[in-house]
Parts: sequence; structure tokens; C-alpha cells
Amino acid sequence: MKKLLSAVSIILALTACEKITNEPVVTLSEVKVMENIPAPKNIIMVIADGMGPAYTTSYRYFNDDPATDIIEETVFDRLLVGSASTYPASISGVVTDSAAGATALATGFKTYNGAIALDVNKKSVETVLEFAKKQGKKTGVVVTSQINHATPAGYLTHNESRNNYNAIADSYIDNGIKADVYFGGGWKYFLREDRNLIEEFKASGFQYIDNYQALNTLKANMPVIGLFDDTGLPSALDDSDPYRLSVMTKVAIKQLENSNGYFMLVEASQIDWAGHSNDIATAMAEMSDLAKTMEYLEEYVKHNPDTLVILTADHSTGGLTVGANGKYEWHPEILRTMKSSPSTIAKQLTDSKITQQGLSELLNFDVTKNEVEQIQAAKVFAIAEIAAYKLLAEQEKLKTKKPTINDIIASAIKNIIDIRTNTGWTSGGHTAIDVPLHTLGKGSEVLKGKVDNTDIAKQIFILLGKN
Amino acid sequence: MKKLLSAVSIILALTACEKITNEPVVTLSEVKVMENIPAPKNIIMVIADGMGPAYTTSYRYFNDDPATDIIEETVFDRLLVGSASTYPASISGVVTDSAAGATALATGFKTYNGAIALDVNKKSVETVLEFAKKQGKKTGVVVTSQINHATPAGYLTHNESRNNYNAIADSYIDNGIKADVYFGGGWKYFLREDRNLIEEFKASGFQYIDNYQALNTLKANMPVIGLFDDTGLPSALDDSDPYRLSVMTKVAIKQLENSNGYFMLVEASQIDWAGHSNDIATAMAEMSDLAKTMEYLEEYVKHNPDTLVILTADHSTGGLTVGANGKYEWHPEILRTMKSSPSTIAKQLTDSKITQQGLSELLNFDVTKNEVEQIQAAKVFAIAEIAAYKLLAEQEKLKTKKPTINDIIASAIKNIIDIRTNTGWTSGGHTAIDVPLHTLGKGSEVLKGKVDNTDIAKQIFILLGKN
Repeated sequence: MKKLLSAVSIILALTACEKITNEPVVTLSEVKVMENIPAPKNIIMVIADGMGPAYTTSYRYFNDDPATDIIEETVFDRLLVGSASTYPASISGVVTDSAAGATALATGFKTYNGAIALDVNKKSVETVLEFAKKQGKKTGVVVTSQINHATPAGYLTHNESRNNYNAIADSYIDNGIKADVYFGGGWKYFLREDRNLIEEFKASGFQYIDNYQALNTLKANMPVIGLFDDTGLPSALDDSDPYRLSVMTKVAIKQLENSNGYFMLVEASQIDWAGHSNDIATAMAEMSDLAKTMEYLEEYVKHNPDTLVILTADHSTGGLTVGANGKYEWHPEILRTMKSSPSTIAKQLTDSKITQQGLSELLNFDVTKNEVEQIQAAKVFAIAEIAAYKLLAEQEKLKTKKPTINDIIASAIKNIIDIRTNTGWTSGGHTAIDVPLHTLGKGSEVLKGKVDNTDIAKQIFILLGKN
Repeated sequence: MKKLLSAVSIILALTACEKITNEPVVTLSEVKVMENIPAPKNIIMVIADGMGPAYTTSYRYFNDDPATDIIEETVFDRLLVGSASTYPASISGVVTDSAAGATALATGFKTYNGAIALDVNKKSVETVLEFAKKQGKKTGVVVTSQINHATPAGYLTHNESRNNYNAIADSYIDNGIKADVYFGGGWKYFLREDRNLIEEFKASGFQYIDNYQALNTLKANMPVIGLFDDTGLPSALDDSDPYRLSVMTKVAIKQLENSNGYFMLVEASQIDWAGHSNDIATAMAEMSDLAKTMEYLEEYVKHNPDTLVILTADHSTGGLTVGANGKYEWHPEILRTMKSSPSTIAKQLTDSKITQQGLSELLNFDVTKNEVEQIQAAKVFAIAEIAAYKLLAEQEKLKTKKPTINDIIASAIKNIIDIRTNTGWTSGGHTAIDVPLHTLGKGSEVLKGKVDNTDIAKQIFILLGKN
């Protein structure tokens, strides 16, 4: 069993390294180093993008079985060990974006919002995935966004801006291939007219798949890139498999298992997107997919106790509150039966007549006459607003985004759902609240209570034997 | 050293008790019982009313010293061990009020909103304070609300409604005096025309004080009731001593210390009131008083290691979010210099001219011309609204509360502060989010990770030797 170095020697070694190379290194002097913690063979880092504490709380009540007397415990309840602060480097204030959040979790460095695994001076800093690969471990990323989105990029590459999507995709080849498994979306960036990165992955020995069915047909011992959509995957409420994260995670683990162990990043990317869109129905479906994934990992660790699983969020999104408007209520009932996202339902209403029966069928709960009228009014308003926008756009250059009927109807649907459930939101962006921290398996005792997001990377580095 | 019974014998004993008496008892079969935990001599239960996780997070950034490179760790960070769910009995949904919250924390029973230490069938259930007294411990309550408010009442008495303030106050004598120290507010209820409860406390051997200065003149070994205001104490931003909770706590401990130990409830009552009022400035001042209290208790436990301290909230108030409106920002700077609450500032503006200089002096930060105009407009609007209300009130019986100039100006001030700080709120009431859990001292290992609010009472009962 591999034992870790003592606290003192690690700190001395790092201090020495800093002096010699004059390059930024993770300062372990600020992190609590526990001695003699046996290192796990496998490390699975799960990031629930945007999942502040209101998400795990609301999921408990969404997940509750009303047929029983009790409120059922969730996997998040079972595994909670504390919470993590998420603030970025001071230049970006106290509210992080996903790039700085990923950089903190992946490298142990606070950086500016937008940075991908660079420090505040735009110098590349090593990620735990890169270090794990150096140590001879297999590595993988499984996400529901495009695989070159901020969070996976924060583990796989280095770039001064998360928005450089093509450059980030290119770097997955150009800077050396760093993972053995890539699952997520991204045709738009990896199958471009100017460059076909998939062919380049194949030339490097990768198998490529582009649909979920093919997950069952993978060759073992051969790296794999699986892209299942143009950008992100369909939302959990709209996808052919609402539990696609858990399915991809299972298959990825099978591909990664080997005698040296593996490091895998799993990201429930779209909790954040539901938060930005203030869409509680989609948020709960994304949380369900994450819960299924965590429940699978609970079982996996039982049979593979040499594995550490860490789950946290990079930040909270939307200013979600479980209850609002002075009412002591939150009603998840209608969320449990919905089968499509508000956005998809809105698309279906754009070109068809909106009736009480039709809307009830699409939402899968009985809407009132008043609610139908709200949606009808939203459609009329949308048509008027778009006409006004056109008129104004001819006269002057409008900077605001062109409104769409779909967005306006979707907002009206979300408004009905918020009123029905009594859900509150304060933002289309992120907030600074500390996020839940959950752990499971070997070495999990190194993280508990209040930690900083950078502590998570620092502890992973220590467990991986960095010194 | 007193050792606890084993898990099995406790559960068997309780089951037997339930069969014989047919009265509701705390079901310990649902709580994790840790064997051989030495019982602490003293237990201090601190309830931060309304303090959801957004409060401890925002306090960190409010408390930060901008002169240093780091974000300073707070006492809440140091002591965090997990979080607690707060839902009441199912009849009241998933969002608790302070009465059901106090009942859960004090007795281990979920109940309906409004109930004071009764179960859902309105049957009295024993509180940890009552049990501690039976065990020969001294007991005390230190709060910043009136001492017959929901939270202290939940430990001291039993009533079908928290709103029966006079009956609750009467019961503090009529049901037998249960505490040795009472500090808080409440002249209105304890010095009534129909009954002078203070005289009755005195007749029972109590010393009575009515001002903070007298806290330094108390006789030892004599019970004490200290009431310092008509209802609740002035808010931390307005009080003569902004750290009155920590001062009262120190004195209470001195009065309570004895060879058998003590149980004390400390409540930072007015975090909740600031939340209801969506007043971030007052909320941060109340958090500062609580932080000072917890820092004192940290020192106290160092010198008195035979003490357990538990800090949690009964629920979160206001739907507070640290950041809002799509902006990745939260700016606590102006909150650090404010010297009066928005409500008190509004009172000073009601009868005087509102100028840029005057308003800047009252707020203790430089306001803009536009901000002054907003407050001036609010005053004009208030006068118009009150006139309209009067007119309407003559014609029909209005059910809404009569608006006051003070409230309308205070709202305008809070609006300016929310915009300056980028603070979000979704409610004038409570939300269901899980609340932080902090512990310190002997026996603290019994509570960690995700617990339910009822688990806290159950574990205290076990530590007190209930079987």
C-alpha cells in the first residue's frame, strides 16, 4: 500500500521546487495534510455544474415518494461531508464563472473568470488529470456539455479564454492527447470544415462513436471518443435517455479500468444551463440523472473499494430558492410528471394553435383556463415584440439579442411552473454561495467540513503522490 | 466519565417506554447512535434563526479584510461539519416556520407550523431543556427576541400557537420555572397591567435587571431574569452594544456554571427578522454579533473542554442570494461602514428634508444624486399612498396593512443597498433550503454530514442520558 509523505516533507519539497523553477506551484502549506492516508487506485471527480445547496435540497423533495410517511433520503444526503467556497481570484470578485471554478478544482489555483487552467498571470498550471496521466493512470472525461466546454477544458488543456472553443478543441490533439475516454457533445467543433479532429483522433488509435447505442459495442483496451450531439447533449427532459450521464459513466469506467488505476472527470454540465434559464423542471431532471450516476458510483465503490469519488459544484446558478413570494410552500408534484422541457414544449406551440387540452398534454399536468390564456398572450406579445424589433433594427443597430417566439413562450411556461411550484430565482447568472461537498470511498477522509475549491485539487494531487 | 448505553439497549428501552405509557417518545431507532461517546457536562445549543447557507457565505465576504491577499476564514468555516434539513410535519409542507423548527430542534418531533413543543396531535413532548433540568443541570435561555418568542418558547413551554404570547409568558411561571437564566426582551408581556410576571419571578427568588449595564452587577448563585426591551432588543445595527448577544452569553455562562453542568439555549433571533425585511445591512450586523458569540464559545471550550456547542439554523429566511440580476458580483463594502439600520435611517428622514449630504451621513457612504432622488421620490410616493389608503379606507374596509412613510422610505433605502451590493431576495418569508451545521467540543462527533433537525434533539437527549 502506497503511503504518503509526511506533511513536513511535502511542504519542504514544494517550497524547494518553487525556489528552483520560479514557476507557480500548488502551495500545499495552506492545505491540511493528513498523514498516512492510503492513496486510492482510482479517482472519480464529479462536478455538478451550478449545483448550489438549493438544488440538492429541492431534489430531496422532488424525489420524495408521497406514498410513504417519510421524506426519502437521497444519495446526496448520504454522501454529504461539508461544503466548498468557490470565489475566484480577487481580480474577478467573489462570484466565479465555470472556467475559473474548473481551474480551481483541477489545478488548485484561483484565477480570473474565463481562464482555462492558467493562473492569474496567464501561466499554464498543471491539472490533476495531466498529473494522473504522467503517473501512468488512464484518464477520461464524461460530460453532458460539449467536451471542449469550460469544465472539461479546465482539466484537459490551457487557454486564456473559455470562449476559444475551436482552439480548445484543436489543443486536445495539438498539445498531446491527454485522455483515453471522451464522452459528451461537440460535432460542431470536432468535425469542422477547416479541420476534422475526429479523423485525427482515429489516426491516433481512437475508436469514434456518435450515438448512445454504440456505447454497448466498444472495443476494450482501445481509447474512445464519443460525441453525441452538435454542442451539448439534449437536456435530460428531452434526451432519448434521460439518464445518459449515468450510462456514459458506466461505460467509461469499463473502458478505463486497468491495473494502474484511472482518473475520471464526470460533469453533470446542464444543471447549470437549467439554472441560467431559470428552468426548475429541467434542473430536477438533470439532478435525477446525476443522482442515478452517484447511486451507480455508490455501488461501484462497494465492489471497488480502492476508488475515491468526490462530488461538488463549481458554483450555484440562478439564485434558486426553494420557496418564494412570502409563501411557506414548495410543490414539486407537477415536476415529477413532466416529459419535455419548457423550451421543447414552446417549440411545439410556435406554429400550432394553443388549446387547454393541447397544453395539458404537452406539460403532462392539467392547466387552467387562465394559464392557457397566459401562454396565448405570450405568443401574441412575442409576435408584436419581434415586429417591433425588426422595425427598430432597420432604423438603428440594435445591440440586444433578437427575441424569438420560442424563448418568449418558454419563459411564459417557466413562469407558470414557478408559480405552481412556488420556486424563486434572482439571476440568470451565478451566485457566490458555498456549494455542497460529497465524498465516498478510499481517502475520502481528506475532505470534510468547510473546504475551499482549491483544497480539492490540492488533496487530489497529494493522493496522486505529487511532491 | 459517564458512558452512554449501547445503541441496542437505548432502542429497547424506548420501545418499552412507548408501549407502557402510550405517549409519544422520541424514536431513537431512526437516529445514528454512536456507542461510548462520553457525555459533555455542559451543552450550549445556538440557533441562528433564519441563517441559511447564503448568510454564512455572505458573512465571509462581508468579514473579509480587503487589506490582505486572502479571504479570511470565519468561525463558521472553522466549525462547519455538515447541514440539516428543516422540513416540518407533512401537514405543513416542506417549508417550516420558527415554531415547528424550534420544536424539532428542542424535542426531536416534527410538528405543524405554529406549534410550540407539541406533536402533530397537539400532545406535549418533552424538550431537551426540560430533561436537562430533571437531570439536575442548570438551564438558561439567551435571545435577542422577546424571551417568549417561538424559538425560546419551543425549549421552555408547550402551546398550540406561537402567537399566544401572553399565555406563553404566563406559562413560564404557571408550569413551573424551568430556567435559571432568562436574557432577552419582553417587558410588554412580562410587565402587563393584568399580571406582573417579573414580581412573580422575584417572589420565586429571581433577581431582575432591565439594562445591559446591570449585567455586570449580578449576584452569583441566584437565578436571574433580564429583560432589556419591550419586545425584541434593538437590531444589532441600532443597539447601544452591537455585540449584545455575545455579552449576554458570557454573563449567562458565568451564572450557569456549576458542578452538575448546564444546558443553555442561545438564539441569534434577529437574523431572521433582517431576512423577513430583506435587509442585508442588518443581516450582516446580526451575523457579526453571532460570530463574536461563537468566537467567544471557541475560547470557552478551550478552557472548558467538557462542553459541547452546537450551532445551526431553524430555516433560511428571505430567499437571500449572494449575487443577482445576471451580474457575477457581490459588493459588501458599504455594509461594513453602516452605523444604523435602514429602518432607523428612514425614521430620521420622515420629518426632515432629504439632502445628498444628509443621506450620505446617515448611511455613512457617499450616495449619488440619483440615489437621493430615489429616496425623495419614495417619500412623495409614501405621502400619496397614505392619502389614497385613507380615502379608500373610508369607502370600504381595507384588509391590507396601512402603509407608513417609514416603511416605504426604508424599502427605498434597502433597494439602493441591494443594487449597490448586488444582493438578491425572493421572499418575505422562509425557504426550505438545508441549513449549515456547526459543532465544537466534547461529544461533537455525534453530528456530522447531512442530519435532520430532529436528529439534533435526539442526539442531545442521548448525551443527556435519556433512555
